[in-house]
Amino acid sequence: MTHRIAILGASGYTGAELVRLIATHPAMRIVALSADRKAGQAMADVFPFLRHLDLPRLQKIDEIDFSGVDLCFCALPHATTQLVIDGLPRTLKIVDLSADFRLRDVAAYEKWYGQPHAAPELQAEAVYGLTEFYRDQIRGARLVAGTGCNAATGQYALRPLISAGVIDLDRILIDLKAGVSGAGRSLKENLLHAELSEGTHAYSAGGKHRHLGEFDQEFSLLAGRPVHVQFTPHLTPMNRGILANVYVDGDAAQIHATLAAAYAAEPFIQVLPLGQLPSTRDIRGSNFCHIGVIGDRIAGRAMVVATLDNLTKGSSGQAIQNANLMLGVEETAGLTLAPIFP
Amino acid sequence: MTHRIAILGASGYTGAELVRLIATHPAMRIVALSADRKAGQAMADVFPFLRHLDLPRLQKIDEIDFSGVDLCFCALPHATTQLVIDGLPRTLKIVDLSADFRLRDVAAYEKWYGQPHAAPELQAEAVYGLTEFYRDQIRGARLVAGTGCNAATGQYALRPLISAGVIDLDRILIDLKAGVSGAGRSLKENLLHAELSEGTHAYSAGGKHRHLGEFDQEFSLLAGRPVHVQFTPHLTPMNRGILANVYVDGDAAQIHATLAAAYAAEPFIQVLPLGQLPSTRDIRGSNFCHIGVIGDRIAGRAMVVATLDNLTKGSSGQAIQNANLMLGVEETAGLTLAPIFP
Amino acid sequence: MTHRIAILGASGYTGAELVRLIATHPAMRIVALSADRKAGQAMADVFPFLRHLDLPRLQKIDEIDFSGVDLCFCALPHATTQLVIDGLPRTLKIVDLSADFRLRDVAAYEKWYGQPHAAPELQAEAVYGLTEFYRDQIRGARLVAGTGCNAATGQYALRPLISAGVIDLDRILIDLKAGVSGAGRSLKENLLHAELSEGTHAYSAGGKHRHLGEFDQEFSLLAGRPVHVQFTPHLTPMNRGILANVYVDGDAAQIHATLAAAYAAEPFIQVLPLGQLPSTRDIRGSNFCHIGVIGDRIAGRAMVVATLDNLTKGSSGQAIQNANLMLGVEETAGLTLAPIFP
Amino acid sequence: MTHRIAILGASGYTGAELVRLIATHPAMRIVALSADRKAGQAMADVFPFLRHLDLPRLQKIDEIDFSGVDLCFCALPHATTQLVIDGLPRTLKIVDLSADFRLRDVAAYEKWYGQPHAAPELQAEAVYGLTEFYRDQIRGARLVAGTGCNAATGQYALRPLISAGVIDLDRILIDLKAGVSGAGRSLKENLLHAELSEGTHAYSAGGKHRHLGEFDQEFSLLAGRPVHVQFTPHLTPMNRGILANVYVDGDAAQIHATLAAAYAAEPFIQVLPLGQLPSTRDIRGSNFCHIGVIGDRIAGRAMVVATLDNLTKGSSGQAIQNANLMLGVEETAGLTLAPIFP
Repeated sequence: MTHRIAILGASGYTGAELVRLIATHPAMRIVALSADRKAGQAMADVFPFLRHLDLPRLQKIDEIDFSGVDLCFCALPHATTQLVIDGLPRTLKIVDLSADFRLRDVAAYEKWYGQPHAAPELQAEAVYGLTEFYRDQIRGARLVAGTGCNAATGQYALRPLISAGVIDLDRILIDLKAGVSGAGRSLKENLLHAELSEGTHAYSAGGKHRHLGEFDQEFSLLAGRPVHVQFTPHLTPMNRGILANVYVDGDAAQIHATLAAAYAAEPFIQVLPLGQLPSTRDIRGSNFCHIGVIGDRIAGRAMVVATLDNLTKGSSGQAIQNANLMLGVEETAGLTLAPIFP
Repeated sequence: MTHRIAILGASGYTGAELVRLIATHPAMRIVALSADRKAGQAMADVFPFLRHLDLPRLQKIDEIDFSGVDLCFCALPHATTQLVIDGLPRTLKIVDLSADFRLRDVAAYEKWYGQPHAAPELQAEAVYGLTEFYRDQIRGARLVAGTGCNAATGQYALRPLISAGVIDLDRILIDLKAGVSGAGRSLKENLLHAELSEGTHAYSAGGKHRHLGEFDQEFSLLAGRPVHVQFTPHLTPMNRGILANVYVDGDAAQIHATLAAAYAAEPFIQVLPLGQLPSTRDIRGSNFCHIGVIGDRIAGRAMVVATLDNLTKGSSGQAIQNANLMLGVEETAGLTLAPIFP
Repeated sequence: MTHRIAILGASGYTGAELVRLIATHPAMRIVALSADRKAGQAMADVFPFLRHLDLPRLQKIDEIDFSGVDLCFCALPHATTQLVIDGLPRTLKIVDLSADFRLRDVAAYEKWYGQPHAAPELQAEAVYGLTEFYRDQIRGARLVAGTGCNAATGQYALRPLISAGVIDLDRILIDLKAGVSGAGRSLKENLLHAELSEGTHAYSAGGKHRHLGEFDQEFSLLAGRPVHVQFTPHLTPMNRGILANVYVDGDAAQIHATLAAAYAAEPFIQVLPLGQLPSTRDIRGSNFCHIGVIGDRIAGRAMVVATLDNLTKGSSGQAIQNANLMLGVEETAGLTLAPIFP
Repeated sequence: MTHRIAILGASGYTGAELVRLIATHPAMRIVALSADRKAGQAMADVFPFLRHLDLPRLQKIDEIDFSGVDLCFCALPHATTQLVIDGLPRTLKIVDLSADFRLRDVAAYEKWYGQPHAAPELQAEAVYGLTEFYRDQIRGARLVAGTGCNAATGQYALRPLISAGVIDLDRILIDLKAGVSGAGRSLKENLLHAELSEGTHAYSAGGKHRHLGEFDQEFSLLAGRPVHVQFTPHLTPMNRGILANVYVDGDAAQIHATLAAAYAAEPFIQVLPLGQLPSTRDIRGSNFCHIGVIGDRIAGRAMVVATLDNLTKGSSGQAIQNANLMLGVEETAGLTLAPIFP
C-alpha cells in the first residue's frame, strides 16, 4: 500500500531531504509540495539535484487538496507552523519538523522562543518525536513534533545514562560541533563559504541555545528532578553532521555497558567498542547515529561522543521514521541507505 | 533471485562505493571481499561508515572460493589487475574498474601505461563499459572494462555530436575539474586537506593524461578517422564530482537538439534546457549525469558541460549498471538513489 | 613622509583587504573609513580580524573631511561609484576599485553594465590600472580605474603574446576558476558554504561576463584590430585565488620566451620554467602572479596558466601598487608580504 | 643590524612559516636552510609559494657552517631534535620548535614521549617559550623550547586565572578544535581532503595527548600543587587555527576582569568584551591570540575561549617573538602582519 504524502515548506533543506529520502521509499508517494514564495515553480528549478524525479509542482498551502493526503510533513519556520497546522484538517496525520510542538509546557515555549504559543491545545496533543524513546505514543499519535537536531544528538548520548542513574546529574557538559546545513538555507554572512570555511566559532553560548528547552524538559522528566546541562554548540566548516561531546562524571565502563544494552536492538543507533570514538564523516547522509565512550585519565570522568547527520537522523530521517510508525509501515522503510563516504 | 558478488580491492574508495551501493541492491549479495594488506580485518575497521552492514571479513584473493561467486568486481590497481584476472576461473563474470582492459590495442596500452600488456587475449575479450553505448555487447560479455571517470564524462558530452557530425573534429577542447576522491586513497602531499583546500591546479596537462587513450580510441572509432582532443584536468577542492567543459565549434541549438535526442530514453543522463549549465553539487552520490549546452557570443562556438560523480556514474555505479546487464537484472536496480544535497 | 588615506566602502572584502595591507605600509596612514549602512560602528565590529588596529570609526561619505586626505580608495559598488567620485574634490587623488571607469568607451560601458554612464568626463580622465602596462600614465594620473580581477589574470597571460604577435588572435579561449571572495560579501544561496563547498559550476558563460568588456578593449587596442576571446569563469570551492587557463594556438617555447622576457624585471610577476604550472595555493594573500606555459601534444597548441589572489593582486593590492606610483612612493611598498601557505 | 639565521627542518610547515615571516623581518636574514631528504633542492621546488624569495639552497645539517650563524631555529621532529642540538656549537642561540625541551622533568618526558631523554643537561638549560610569561628568562637564554600549539592556546586562557585563584582547579575542562596544519605535512589517511573535509572527530582523547605534559607542568607550578585538566582535541576541517573552549567553575565577570588586566599591555593578546567570543577566522596567519569569556546560565560556571593560529602564534610566530628577545630586537619585529580574512 502506498501512502500519499504532502510536504509543506519544500524549498528548504529539510524539505529537500524529505524528498530525497521518500524518492526510494517503498510505501510513500509525494502528492503535494508547498513553498509559498516559490509557488508555481517546478522542484527541479529550486533544487536541480532532484530533477530526475517526477514531482508535483510547488503550491501555496491553501491550494492543496488535503482530502487526498494521508500524512503531511510540515517543514515550515517555527511560529508560522502552529498557525498553519491549526488550520489543517483534524483527520490528517502530521509530522512537524519545526520547534513549535517540542515543549509540552507553553510557558517554556514562551521563555525559549520569545512569544506566547498560539495553539496550546495542539501542543497538548503532540508527541515528542525521539523515536527510540517514544515509539508507542508515536504509533498512535496524530501530531508528532520532531526534535531539534542538536537536542536529538545530546539525548542519544545521555538518556540511558540518566535513566540508569550512572552519572552525576549536576555535572553534564555538552560541547557540540555542528555542520552548517543545520542553519538552513538562510542568507547570513557567517554562513558564506568565504567566512565559514576557515572559521570555527561557538554560537548561542552560555546557556542561550533554544534546544536547551528540550534538554531541560526531557532530562528532568527522566530524572524525576530538575536537570540543567551546560551546552555550547559550534559552527564548524562542514555541511552535514553533528558531533556532540558529552562530558560526564561517571565510570566509563559502566556508561558504555549501559548504552550498549540500551541500544542493542535499535536498528539505527550503533554503539562503538569502549574507547573508540566516532566521526561525522561516517554517518553522512544516513539515518545512523554512532556513539562512542572513553574514560578520562582523571578517575570518575568520562566522555560520550554521539554523531548523526542533522538533516537525516536529526530531522528528515527521524520524521520519516516516525511517519512509518504512524502509518503502520516497517519502521526502517526508506531509511536503510548507507552513509556516503568520502 | 539474488546474485552472489565478490569485490576484489575493497579497501579503496571505489571498493567502498560498491559496497555502499550494493547494500540496498535488491538482487545482489556480497559474499567475499578482498584487500591484501588488510586481510583479516573487518570492513568496519577499514571503513567505519559501513559498520551497520553484515559483511564478510576481508581476505586475500587466493583465500576466496570463487565457486560460490556469480560476478566479481575488480577494483585493483592497474597492472596488478591483468595478472589477477588472468588467474580467475573462466566461468566467472567480471566487471573491472581498473585501466587494464579499456584500450583494445595493446600498443596503445603500452604507450599510455608504460609497460607491455600481460594478458592480451583477455584484452581481446573485454567489452568497453560505457553502458549507454555498449549495452548489447555488455549484456553478453564475460569481462567488462569500466571506463576512466574523466573519460566517461567527456564521452557523454561528445559521442552523440561526433556520431551526428555536428562539430569540428579538429577543435575539441576539454577543460575538466575533478574532485579529489578520483585520486583514490593515496597518500600524496597535494591530496592533503592543508594543501588542496585552497589549491586548484592542473595536472597531467599538455596531452599527458592517460584517459586520452580512451578518448582517442573511442572518438576515432566513432568518426572513422583519427580524432585527437585537447584535455586538461584540474584538481579541485571538493571530494566528489567531475565537471567537464567541452569547447567545440558548432551550432549550440543543433548540438543541444542532438544530445537531447540521443539521451531522451536514458534513465541516468539528463540534458538540461538549452542555456542552462549543471553543477557538481547536484549529482553527488548518484548515478546521474547532467549535461548542459550554451552558445558563445562568437558565432559557431559552443560549450557542452557534463557533470557526474566520479565514484558513482564514473566508476562504481557504472560497474553495477553493467553488472545488472550481465546478470539479466533490471539495468537501474540499486542505482536510483537521489543525489545528496547539500 | 606618510600619506593620509581614506577608504570609501570599507565594509566589503576589498575594503578590508586594503586595511590589512595598509596596516604594514611604511608610507600610508588611514584617516577615514566610510560604510554607509554601518556608519558609527568600529571597524572591529564589522571585521574582528582587524581589532588590533587603531582605526577611525566608520562614517558616511559626506561626513568625511577630504581636506585632510591625500588619496582616496573607492571600493563602492559600480554605478554608485561614478556619482560619488563626481562629488569629490577635484584635487583628490583617487584609486577606484569598481567597474565604473574601466571602459573608455561609454557605449561599451552601457552595453556591459546596462545603463548609461553618469560621469563621462571623468571616464575620459581615468587611467586603466593594470600597473605593469600603464605605469607611466598611472604615475601622473588623478583617477585610476582598477581592473576586474578576472580581467587582470587573463591579461597577464595574454598581453605580451598579443603584442608580440605569437598567437592566433581568433582562437583564444580562457577557462577560469575563481574563489568565492571575488563575489564579495553578498548574500546569495550559491555562495553559502552548504551549497558551494562541493559545487563547482560555470557562471556568466557564453560570452556574458562583464570583464569581457575589458578584454575586448585592451586586446583590440594592443592588436590594432578587433579581438574577441571566449571566456568562461567558474565558481570554485575556495576563498581566494583565480586560476586562468588560457588556450592558444602558438608555439609553447616561443610563448614562454615571450612571457619570460616581458616580465623579467617585474617584481610581482613570476614566470615558471617551461612546462611547470602554477596553483592558487601558492599566491594566496600576496601581490604575486604566477604564470606557467605548457605545450599540447597537438603541435601548435599551447596553454598559458596565470594565477593571482583576486583580493590582492586582482584588486586591493593592485590598487595600492597604483597608489604608490601616484604618491611617488616605492612601487612595491607594503606589498612584499609572502603568500600564506597552507 | 641584521642577524644571520639558520632554519633546520625547513621542508615542513613550521619551517616554511618561519621563512614566510622572516621574509619581511627588518633584522633577520636567512643564511642557511636544512632538509635532510631534500638537500640540494631549491626552497621554491619544495614550497612554490616562496619562489619570489632569494633563499639559500637546502642542505644537510652537517653541511652548514654555523660560524656564520647568530641564531638557529630548529623545526625537526622530536627525539631527532635532542641529538641534533646536542651536536651544535655551544655558542649558538637556539629556538627549538619541537617537543624535546618543553618538559623540565626528564621522567615526565619519558612518560609522555615513550623514551628516555638523550640530552638531559640541555633540558636543564632550556627555557619554556611561552613568551608573555617567561620574557625575562627568554631574554637571557641560549636555548628556548617552543611550546605545543594546543598547550599555548590553553595556557593563554588559563594561566592568569590559576595565578589569581579565581577558578576551581579541580574542574578545568578544555575542549579544543584544531586545524589540520597542526598535524604537519604528514601523509596519513585522516589528513586527506577526501576524509577530513566533512569529518570532525576527537583524537588522543581521554587524557592521552602529549600536550597534557605541558599543562600539568605549568599549571601545577603556578598553583603550587598538582593540577590535572581534562583535555580533548578535535581535528576540524580547516587548515589553520585552534579554538580552545575552556570550561571552568568561577565567576565570569571576575574571570574576564582578571584576563583583561593580565593582558592589558600585551601586544598580541586581545581580550574581547565580556560576552563576546572569538573565531578562528579572525586570527589566521597572524601572531594574535583572541580571548573571550562568557558566563553560563548555571551560576558559577563560565567558559573562556582562546583562539590563535597554530603555525604562527602557536609555533613559528612564537619562535620569532622569542628570537627577537634573545637577539635584543624589538619583540614585535616581523610579527605585526594583520590576519588574513577571508
